[in-house]
Amino acid sequence: MKVLVINCGSSSLKYQLINPSTEEVFAIGLCDRIGIHGSKFEYEVPATDFELELEHDMPTHKEALELVLNTLTGEHGVIADINEVDAVGHRIVHGGEEFTTSVLLDERVMAGIEANNDLAPLHNPANLLGVKTCMELIPGKPNVGVFDTAFHQTMPAKAFMYPLPYADYTELKVRKYGFHGTSHKFVAGLANDLLGNPEKSKVIVCHLGNGASISAVKDGKSVDTSMGLTPLQGLMMGTRCGDIDPAAALFIKTKRDLTDKEIDARMNKESGILGIFEKSSD
Amino acid sequence: MKVLVINCGSSSLKYQLINPSTEEVFAIGLCDRIGIHGSKFEYEVPATDFELELEHDMPTHKEALELVLNTLTGEHGVIADINEVDAVGHRIVHGGEEFTTSVLLDERVMAGIEANNDLAPLHNPANLLGVKTCMELIPGKPNVGVFDTAFHQTMPAKAFMYPLPYADYTELKVRKYGFHGTSHKFVAGLANDLLGNPEKSKVIVCHLGNGASISAVKDGKSVDTSMGLTPLQGLMMGTRCGDIDPAAALFIKTKRDLTDKEIDARMNKESGILGIFEKSSD
Repeated sequence: MKVLVINCGSSSLKYQLINPSTEEVFAIGLCDRIGIHGSKFEYEVPATDFELELEHDMPTHKEALELVLNTLTGEHGVIADINEVDAVGHRIVHGGEEFTTSVLLDERVMAGIEANNDLAPLHNPANLLGVKTCMELIPGKPNVGVFDTAFHQTMPAKAFMYPLPYADYTELKVRKYGFHGTSHKFVAGLANDLLGNPEKSKVIVCHLGNGASISAVKDGKSVDTSMGLTPLQGLMMGTRCGDIDPAAALFIKTKRDLTDKEIDARMNKESGILGIFEKSSD
Repeated sequence: MKVLVINCGSSSLKYQLINPSTEEVFAIGLCDRIGIHGSKFEYEVPATDFELELEHDMPTHKEALELVLNTLTGEHGVIADINEVDAVGHRIVHGGEEFTTSVLLDERVMAGIEANNDLAPLHNPANLLGVKTCMELIPGKPNVGVFDTAFHQTMPAKAFMYPLPYADYTELKVRKYGFHGTSHKFVAGLANDLLGNPEKSKVIVCHLGNGASISAVKDGKSVDTSMGLTPLQGLMMGTRCGDIDPAAALFIKTKRDLTDKEIDARMNKESGILGIFEKSSD
């Protein structure tokens, strides 16, 4: 089985063609600066160490995915025909409260994802654009959405509810969602398998990269995690301040006469999955 | 020995006359709505259960303290002469980094407290006003300042430094200070005495009231605490949200089109020691 895995950002598209059973990676690469001057394409075949890197105009995600598919089936390709792709997996950032597991994508599901655009206005629309482009260019194959937030949807209300006016939850969906879900799920599952106690267990999972979060996983289910409405909350990270006094942000903003966007950038250098101030990165 | 203890807010003055050795309370009370229409005065003598509550004009803290002193020495008083007061103790909210213990108040020290007014613009000036009034009306007696922040000044930098631009620390003094210091110090000391191990100990102190904070006290010294630059950070409290995603505040502010002052009030119903938006309460 060959699965094309896509992580589609607002101006980038990361991809891998893999065999999920054997974990073999047939090809891996990246389209960067889509729709921006100087778009870049990277392609690598691990089995042969073949590498390709070139500048290539990609006005939209469609041209980017066409380039990926042409390369996968071309001279240095790893498949003869695009029909060898059995399924496409999509990373979707924000599944809100609706999506508690990976789902087969159809019109109804995609409308549900779109309903959470407010919570990730830069990322969810880009993710959906990747889905639509794949449905168009690789027709008739199943597309599956895998959410950053889904694993943490087992958190009880006492863990996810903020002590703010309840209307901020009911009207604006403000609550703790948690992220890095695929990683926390995988690591907790592996720990449980190794410890031989998958059903009755308590595991603390530490996801420590440039972004970082921890979670408490009880009997295989996430019961709390450090990231919140956005990935800013929790641990100190490479480009995010994590937990600080929320009043400190207002204090600095007032003292330095900053805009909301500027104080946001001060706390979150890279981007913010949040994207309410239209920053563009993943 | 008789000590007058004063907690002077922007529009209130709480007082007790006590014997610190025996912990006897001779008198206790409150001046409320100072400088506001309908000022209220309360006075109680625990030994005789005498209670007095009356409306009395108090345009400034000076009239309030005069009323306190006249009552203490009057018909239902507990001392014959104001000179029986041996010393005055003042609660000072914010000692910044300078004050690591209680101090005898003089001109130099008061200038040092004033230098931290930015960190508690409503409270420190009111506290200092109480000191000056006492120095005027009870001349020649020692005045001692007791800081909410002092006990936590043993925190190492790794505990008090926020992962924000370093200039916010050097230029704006933005760091974790911690509060409820007198309570954490007292409880940790008592625990160490009871456990008989005052020098080598690890104690977690939970201060759980309408305001709430926890601290880690190692060998009698605070090494971390939950409150931060302001008392907003940390635990969920009666009127403060405590730790939330700092981006959630900006998200709600943007979605609901709120001012800084409004989102601040949404997180901190009561007041905020911060007071940068000129709220008036303790």
